[in-house]
Amino acid sequence: MRVMPASEFSLQREVEYGTPEQNESVQRIIEEVRRDGDAALRKFAQQFDGVKIEELRVTQEEIEAAYAQVDESFLTALREAAVNIRRFHEKQMRNSWMDLQADGSILGQAIRPLRRVGLYVPGGKAAYPSSVLMNAIPAQVAGVPEIVMVTPPATAGLEGINPHILVAAAEAGVREIYRVGGAQAVAALAYGTESIPAADKIVGPGNIYVALAKRSVFGAVDIDSIAGPSEIVVLADETADAAYVAADLLSQAEHDEMASAILVTPSRELAEAVRLEVDRQLSELPRRDIAAQSIRDYGAILTVDSLTEGVGVVNRLAPEHLEIIVREPFDYLSRIENAGAIFLGPYSSEPVGDYFAGPNHVLPTNGTARFSSPLNVDDFLKKSSVIYYSKEALLRDGENIITLARHEGLDAHARAIEIRLKKEGDQRG
Amino acid sequence: MRVMPASEFSLQREVEYGTPEQNESVQRIIEEVRRDGDAALRKFAQQFDGVKIEELRVTQEEIEAAYAQVDESFLTALREAAVNIRRFHEKQMRNSWMDLQADGSILGQAIRPLRRVGLYVPGGKAAYPSSVLMNAIPAQVAGVPEIVMVTPPATAGLEGINPHILVAAAEAGVREIYRVGGAQAVAALAYGTESIPAADKIVGPGNIYVALAKRSVFGAVDIDSIAGPSEIVVLADETADAAYVAADLLSQAEHDEMASAILVTPSRELAEAVRLEVDRQLSELPRRDIAAQSIRDYGAILTVDSLTEGVGVVNRLAPEHLEIIVREPFDYLSRIENAGAIFLGPYSSEPVGDYFAGPNHVLPTNGTARFSSPLNVDDFLKKSSVIYYSKEALLRDGENIITLARHEGLDAHARAIEIRLKKEGDQRG
Repeated sequence: MRVMPASEFSLQREVEYGTPEQNESVQRIIEEVRRDGDAALRKFAQQFDGVKIEELRVTQEEIEAAYAQVDESFLTALREAAVNIRRFHEKQMRNSWMDLQADGSILGQAIRPLRRVGLYVPGGKAAYPSSVLMNAIPAQVAGVPEIVMVTPPATAGLEGINPHILVAAAEAGVREIYRVGGAQAVAALAYGTESIPAADKIVGPGNIYVALAKRSVFGAVDIDSIAGPSEIVVLADETADAAYVAADLLSQAEHDEMASAILVTPSRELAEAVRLEVDRQLSELPRRDIAAQSIRDYGAILTVDSLTEGVGVVNRLAPEHLEIIVREPFDYLSRIENAGAIFLGPYSSEPVGDYFAGPNHVLPTNGTARFSSPLNVDDFLKKSSVIYYSKEALLRDGENIITLARHEGLDAHARAIEIRLKKEGDQRG
Repeated sequence: MRVMPASEFSLQREVEYGTPEQNESVQRIIEEVRRDGDAALRKFAQQFDGVKIEELRVTQEEIEAAYAQVDESFLTALREAAVNIRRFHEKQMRNSWMDLQADGSILGQAIRPLRRVGLYVPGGKAAYPSSVLMNAIPAQVAGVPEIVMVTPPATAGLEGINPHILVAAAEAGVREIYRVGGAQAVAALAYGTESIPAADKIVGPGNIYVALAKRSVFGAVDIDSIAGPSEIVVLADETADAAYVAADLLSQAEHDEMASAILVTPSRELAEAVRLEVDRQLSELPRRDIAAQSIRDYGAILTVDSLTEGVGVVNRLAPEHLEIIVREPFDYLSRIENAGAIFLGPYSSEPVGDYFAGPNHVLPTNGTARFSSPLNVDDFLKKSSVIYYSKEALLRDGENIITLARHEGLDAHARAIEIRLKKEGDQRG
């Protein structure tokens, strides 16, 4: 792992938005689903997944069978995680409010859940039960009445839907599940088919075809942000345990080759010790090929003169995950401007947040923490402004409104007020 | 204005996303600004606006001169509107929170303003001072330290920047203003030039070139939603004043030819009276050509059997603006699922909200109220999750975290926990 002064480093990753062929293929799939509905979904399942689908919807019996296939230890861990995730997201919930003014007017904001949300869950090896919880529970906490899941009928040597995914869905309260994946699943959620009613929003990760399809249907429905390559930055001083730091860097690096794992430290000793630990631990990892490439291409140990300089480096990188393993980690919290999730102290290892603590693991990637937030309950709520103007308020403010409308050349706006002032003023006078 | 049963109506407007030529032109402009910075901005000002720019930044003297050019009545109205807008948006403000758990862990959410926001303001006749307030004040309330405005140096027969725009900016607390417009202004805000530091988010309306440029730079920076054609729906019963309803429909119709103005009513008498009033009032409007085309193409009076049916029609249309002018308007509020702003009763005419009451006039258009919200303070805040796990909590939850990580095949995640359990458990034991 390279060691270098922070001032000489910049993280440059070119993100791929799909080839023209992939884009065209996705457009064709979407159009065909809009035109042929369920028939197109069955055709693509045969074509892409090699599966002949009878029933698109997963049955209650299949969900019960999935429970029989998962370990007790998995179910226990999943349920405790779900409790924590639910409790944390409940703190984010917001309520409608109305304010009565002295003149009898009422202004407010109605806050309501989206009606129907579609959750995409990848199949095969990239099927993560934790992602099912992280995407479904905030929607459930928001009060979304219809949460529906789509997932491929089979992938790469796996027959049927991964039982851990079905169990995670059931634990998160998702009962409407369809065996359909890829761009065709996104199209079905956006436009609806005979079997799958259209949703208002689509969330969840997927491969490049899923990502391109989500971008394409955005506008007809809402989508979550499309995840880019992810990062961990560890800001540490000489009190940090090098083995912990190295393990945490590698837990991010194993995700994929474009992931970036960066240590920022004023301690030369820690820098050297982490460098050695990364090499040592890397050799033992099952996913060492992925992790090694990530560390080589996008990993770095950045030396700084002080933790204050380190904070500046962190804010420039705006990492998805930030660990602060220093003597007084809370002292730095208010100075961190840009980070998706901030892990404080030696025991707050990134996987604690990925799986269990409660905050969401869907986080802004690739520097977008400058302006984006973790997935949260607000993402499943919508607001409407409420305006009730009293007659008294309109008579008082009418001339000001007319003045502003006339200055913008919008005469019909002015007249909508004038017609009322004239009639109501006459009646009053 | 056509009168028809609601069941036979659907609103179909094909939204234009720019010609290939426009898209290519925007790409070229963006690349040139990234490469040549200020020089490109000067070149395009000459080319598109016919203006030779000396200083890009508007001076304090120019802002003061603008104050001398606006009416006292305008300034009074603008200032009162700003007070109302600020007061309403302050109610939306949210604070960071942290929760101490019994095991010593701390979980929370840090909520912070974006650092720098760019506000695009169109030039010429489409320059709306009210839009400056509606876009800048929520950012200011959120605590954004740097709010910067860009606006074309001149447009269509107007020399220099509209003084009403400069005054509105100053009243909203915006002091950093650059005379640059079009796609080049968006590129400057997204990537920065020698004179204009890059922003984290770009908001504000613009022509097709501005909209295409915003779509293109999204990802490098955040953007607000791109406004589509807008709507008003009036849900009214026989107690409504036909002249008021007609005036409100026309105040939306005058915006542009693709705007849609729709009355939904169970009263045949009101339907007929409004139809006559629209014709009568339309003939008096300065912008009657625009309004007439909007009414003809996208306007309608929809008859329903009951207000309950009418509520269903409203929710299907998901209008940007909804007026409810019925006997007990508040009785319907909780049944409205989809609407950007809801105006209740006969005195809450749409222009009251466009200009003055306080809620934002930047609203979800073209049916996106199903999943989008009015521009609000949250749009200028970002959240970071905060996780401080105690040693006790990690020792308790470690095995569950390892179980979940192993089931997802993410071994390095499991090891980051194991290495701590081993060392800390040993020390404890």
